[in-house]
Amino acid sequence: MSQPSEVHPAWLPPSAFRALGSRRIRIDGQGPPADTVRSEVTRACAHFGGRICAPGEEADLVLAVAPSSEAGSEGFHLSRQDGSTVVLADGPAGLLHGLFEVVRRGEAAFGPGLTGRRHEPAFALRVLDHWDNVDVHPVMGQVERGYSGGSILWQDGRLRDDPARIREYARLVAAAGINAVTVNNVNVHTAETHLLTDRLAEVAALAGAFRPYGIRVHLSVNFAAPVILGDLDTADPLDPAVRSWWAHTTEKVFAIAPDFGGYLVKADSEGQPGPFTYGRTHADGANMLAAALAPHGAIVRWRAFVYNHRQDWRDRSTDRARAACDHFAPLDGEFHDNVILQVKYGPMDFQTREPVSPVLFAMPSTRLAVELQATQEYTGQQRHVCYLPPMWSGVLGFHPYGEPGPAVADVAASGGALVAVSNVGDDPFWTGHPLAQANLYAVGRLAWTPTLDPAAVLDECIALTFPGAGEPLREILHELMDDSWQTYEQYTAPLGVGFMVRPGRHYGPDVDGYEYTPWGTYHFADRDGVGVDRTAATGTGFAAQYPRPWSEVYESRATCPDELLLFFHHVPYDHVLHSGTTVIQHIYDTHFAGAERVAGMRDRWRDAVALVDPAVHARVADRLDEQLRSAEEWRDQINTYFFRKSGIPDAKGRTIH
Amino acid sequence: MSQPSEVHPAWLPPSAFRALGSRRIRIDGQGPPADTVRSEVTRACAHFGGRICAPGEEADLVLAVAPSSEAGSEGFHLSRQDGSTVVLADGPAGLLHGLFEVVRRGEAAFGPGLTGRRHEPAFALRVLDHWDNVDVHPVMGQVERGYSGGSILWQDGRLRDDPARIREYARLVAAAGINAVTVNNVNVHTAETHLLTDRLAEVAALAGAFRPYGIRVHLSVNFAAPVILGDLDTADPLDPAVRSWWAHTTEKVFAIAPDFGGYLVKADSEGQPGPFTYGRTHADGANMLAAALAPHGAIVRWRAFVYNHRQDWRDRSTDRARAACDHFAPLDGEFHDNVILQVKYGPMDFQTREPVSPVLFAMPSTRLAVELQATQEYTGQQRHVCYLPPMWSGVLGFHPYGEPGPAVADVAASGGALVAVSNVGDDPFWTGHPLAQANLYAVGRLAWTPTLDPAAVLDECIALTFPGAGEPLREILHELMDDSWQTYEQYTAPLGVGFMVRPGRHYGPDVDGYEYTPWGTYHFADRDGVGVDRTAATGTGFAAQYPRPWSEVYESRATCPDELLLFFHHVPYDHVLHSGTTVIQHIYDTHFAGAERVAGMRDRWRDAVALVDPAVHARVADRLDEQLRSAEEWRDQINTYFFRKSGIPDAKGRTIH
Repeated sequence: MSQPSEVHPAWLPPSAFRALGSRRIRIDGQGPPADTVRSEVTRACAHFGGRICAPGEEADLVLAVAPSSEAGSEGFHLSRQDGSTVVLADGPAGLLHGLFEVVRRGEAAFGPGLTGRRHEPAFALRVLDHWDNVDVHPVMGQVERGYSGGSILWQDGRLRDDPARIREYARLVAAAGINAVTVNNVNVHTAETHLLTDRLAEVAALAGAFRPYGIRVHLSVNFAAPVILGDLDTADPLDPAVRSWWAHTTEKVFAIAPDFGGYLVKADSEGQPGPFTYGRTHADGANMLAAALAPHGAIVRWRAFVYNHRQDWRDRSTDRARAACDHFAPLDGEFHDNVILQVKYGPMDFQTREPVSPVLFAMPSTRLAVELQATQEYTGQQRHVCYLPPMWSGVLGFHPYGEPGPAVADVAASGGALVAVSNVGDDPFWTGHPLAQANLYAVGRLAWTPTLDPAAVLDECIALTFPGAGEPLREILHELMDDSWQTYEQYTAPLGVGFMVRPGRHYGPDVDGYEYTPWGTYHFADRDGVGVDRTAATGTGFAAQYPRPWSEVYESRATCPDELLLFFHHVPYDHVLHSGTTVIQHIYDTHFAGAERVAGMRDRWRDAVALVDPAVHARVADRLDEQLRSAEEWRDQINTYFFRKSGIPDAKGRTIH
Repeated sequence: MSQPSEVHPAWLPPSAFRALGSRRIRIDGQGPPADTVRSEVTRACAHFGGRICAPGEEADLVLAVAPSSEAGSEGFHLSRQDGSTVVLADGPAGLLHGLFEVVRRGEAAFGPGLTGRRHEPAFALRVLDHWDNVDVHPVMGQVERGYSGGSILWQDGRLRDDPARIREYARLVAAAGINAVTVNNVNVHTAETHLLTDRLAEVAALAGAFRPYGIRVHLSVNFAAPVILGDLDTADPLDPAVRSWWAHTTEKVFAIAPDFGGYLVKADSEGQPGPFTYGRTHADGANMLAAALAPHGAIVRWRAFVYNHRQDWRDRSTDRARAACDHFAPLDGEFHDNVILQVKYGPMDFQTREPVSPVLFAMPSTRLAVELQATQEYTGQQRHVCYLPPMWSGVLGFHPYGEPGPAVADVAASGGALVAVSNVGDDPFWTGHPLAQANLYAVGRLAWTPTLDPAAVLDECIALTFPGAGEPLREILHELMDDSWQTYEQYTAPLGVGFMVRPGRHYGPDVDGYEYTPWGTYHFADRDGVGVDRTAATGTGFAAQYPRPWSEVYESRATCPDELLLFFHHVPYDHVLHSGTTVIQHIYDTHFAGAERVAGMRDRWRDAVALVDPAVHARVADRLDEQLRSAEEWRDQINTYFFRKSGIPDAKGRTIH
């Protein structure tokens, strides 16, 4: 069992509570979150000399629940009143979020410059999905697509005996704004299927561990559970016995965990069972589970990640990018009120650059969740610095109908959710790469306020994580992180074409690695050009799944943004981009530039040696060495591949092997 | 435990003994092989009504050891004398080989047409190396590169409790001419390292199981055993303590297994430990083990498979093909008399087509073993019909100094060995694909008589395996098998270029799969041409490792055989082959033709439905379906890849995707 004392405090070191902990604080509220606030404040005051005031006593900070409190509401009002800072929460959970808002602001929370205003989350549901397996999977391991060691939740086939670690995790993510955690992998294997019934006690234990921080536990369930658990011989969602099985099973869940959050389902996807087996629709499947959950006020999240993963690469008419819209758009309006359709941000699979999934604008009568991936499956696997919020902000701030008009966050936040696949494991730094903590932090912050500037979110995270480090470290970290996603994009797959990674592992380059596979992930590079024709005029028609103006913008080479050109068009290597350079020269230029930027990052980090804990410095330095090696490998493979294909030399005469 | 009755009898069904079993037989000899002959004859007579005669009694077959017998000799004289067939063996082992020669000949052994002559093996040592692991390896499984189920020797981390199966295996391979078996993988992991010392009883048990059939057991040993087994802190071959450790350890081996055959070592290869760690040569390493084995009359086989497996693909000067010769040729004459240097048949790694390894002609003062691979790692993994003896005959019959002059078999058989990596597992058909039994059979037969015609060897195997099936089945099997290696070559990597397989698994196409890896296996295809320049004039110089005439033949595009062109030369796609067609058109033509031939094989096999056991028919039919699917995948990927690169259309206008 790892000792909490060995674990890095991330953005909640004791010193983050300095401003608050040195003051007089009054707390007025009941229930688990209020108790948690009380214990947080007590701990902070023990460190910094402040104290908890008695009811009615004069205080520097008052944390109170409004008289007309609403149990479910998380909002609060923060202001200065008569020399005190006051958090007036809508309900107990708001008290906790208000506390962490005060922590984030530090001394500024107690200054006259504080502008009084109301705070409330844009997304009512802000979720981290853990792709953690209970049993170590022979191929995927303990945490599928996990790059931070083992699971903090499960070990050796059972609940991990480390409540302190889980509590610390709950505290961290609650402080960032998260209010739900899915505790097992969406690929629900046999052992995990049993969590729903005979292993329910483990789920209840987790619910108890997360409850003090206002976080509800969700469970990934197996659509075939009624069959696999041996009770029925069908999982047909319209079969009365099946519906009754789910209703009774769900009742038992709530009997033991009354604040249980809901189910997450990956059905008819990559080999998982689903309603298609019984000739039913995804709406039939989701609504059956929704009916079981509705009496308990809980929801089912149903993933839209459905496509043919046994495609024939010779078939040029099938387009994986189209699949989710083709499957789900016709079902708009058919889902029950407590179904949330969970949609990956792009139409493919968490690539470094994809257009925003058109499913998000094709289903106005359906509650939607936007699914992000904090774990860096395709973005460097926490060996590479890749600060993802600039990408996420781009998705959330995308205007599907042009400007003015609602952004994705406006569309999805209405009744929907923001979800990220967690990047956390039992690594002492939580996330493998210490700088990847910022991605985890940003999930919660952007879910609460999608319009936050990514650089400002990073600033918050730096100030909390490295209190007192000052301007030099802040500058170094911004230099390393602000543009790191774009840097990663530069040296990997170009112009939105995607993939080109080692199959299975998804780390490191392999340009043709997925080109002749059944996965629907192709680039069609030949001696003349590269890219996928997804236009309506001559291609797969995917571009037409967008509303205007984007259907038109993407349809035409002349208007398609450079960074998505190869996602939508197959173009010759000498095609001239809006940037004024040719496609082939762009490939060379960005790959040389990207690797060079990584070399600069590695050098720059040396300047931080005296500014951070030696263990943090060493870990980051090691990973930067690997990032540089990997970036140079990407640069050389990509450049060589396209030089061999195109025969066009680099205009600047640099070395291409 | 699998019952022998469920296991296919391969080339020794009871009916193979019909001619012998119906006659009067006299046996004159002592020792385990003679006892085995006696029990074989008794069993045959029980089936077919013959009997064993008393000493001096008149008999149809006399099996006798010559008065001046030599313990080690396996030769025998077979002739007709006064109406009897007589096997006069040099020693007890010859009795056994003589028996199986009579079995092979069937009725013809008893006819007047039998020409009396002496039979003796060309290779004194005829070995099957098992790459079987004791513990299941997390990546490589129970049998590394095994495609026939689990190991017949090991299971669940210990010796398998199935002596009947092991005895049956010994019987089968002895009947084919094998006289040695290496019982564990050349990659010696931890558990397997202990076989040498505290787990020696398991080795002794195997020696006992193989002994009745004249087969000696060899062990793959870990060069670092003195360190790993915890006795010493060095494995330096010149350290007296290390030498003493090996001498004592080896003494204990022979104390428990007096007819133990020797050690096999993979050192300084693909991560295995070796003498390089201590700044010593391979001769130092091999000679140390030889010194330990010499007092017991045993040998060490030292593998020449040494190369840099962490090559940088950007480095065009390093050539894996050169490595073995570069490492070992300078050591010629330095190895002790009981060292045999074991050399893969080609300079790379068991590819479908390689030139013969020049190591085999570069070391006239060294005993050599030619290593073949019966397990079809790169040749269809026993899902594809690929009868390998035509390739093996080509290697053994290759004349390194031109004709006239000795062939490889002449060079290597002098004091050397023929070795094949086994293709056997606990599959009921032994080899996964029933038709792959013929490869196993042929290993022994070619080791005994390298000049045998592969089609004649197949005829023998068919006659024994399917007695009484007659001409129609024989024709079908020849149609499927005779040219199956060439067919496989047609639809896979062209013109000797090699690899182009899925990395790691080595099944199915992936043209660029190994192109940017550290393994030294590249094809350098670009938009203009393909192939590796290994000439002395402009390339890596590998061609100059051959003696004349081959150094000159391979050096020039004008004389290099078509089938090895891309192994030795990088040529443009429009280069005209000796066959009169261009390289690109050859690629298209052979890939269409190869897949078409497989379709023909699948259809032809339907004609055998009434001619063989239904289980055999079904298994072969299933595998032919997969072979056709795979051949079409190869055809399409290879053709598409080269069409995309070259831009040259198929002259015959066939579909290229």
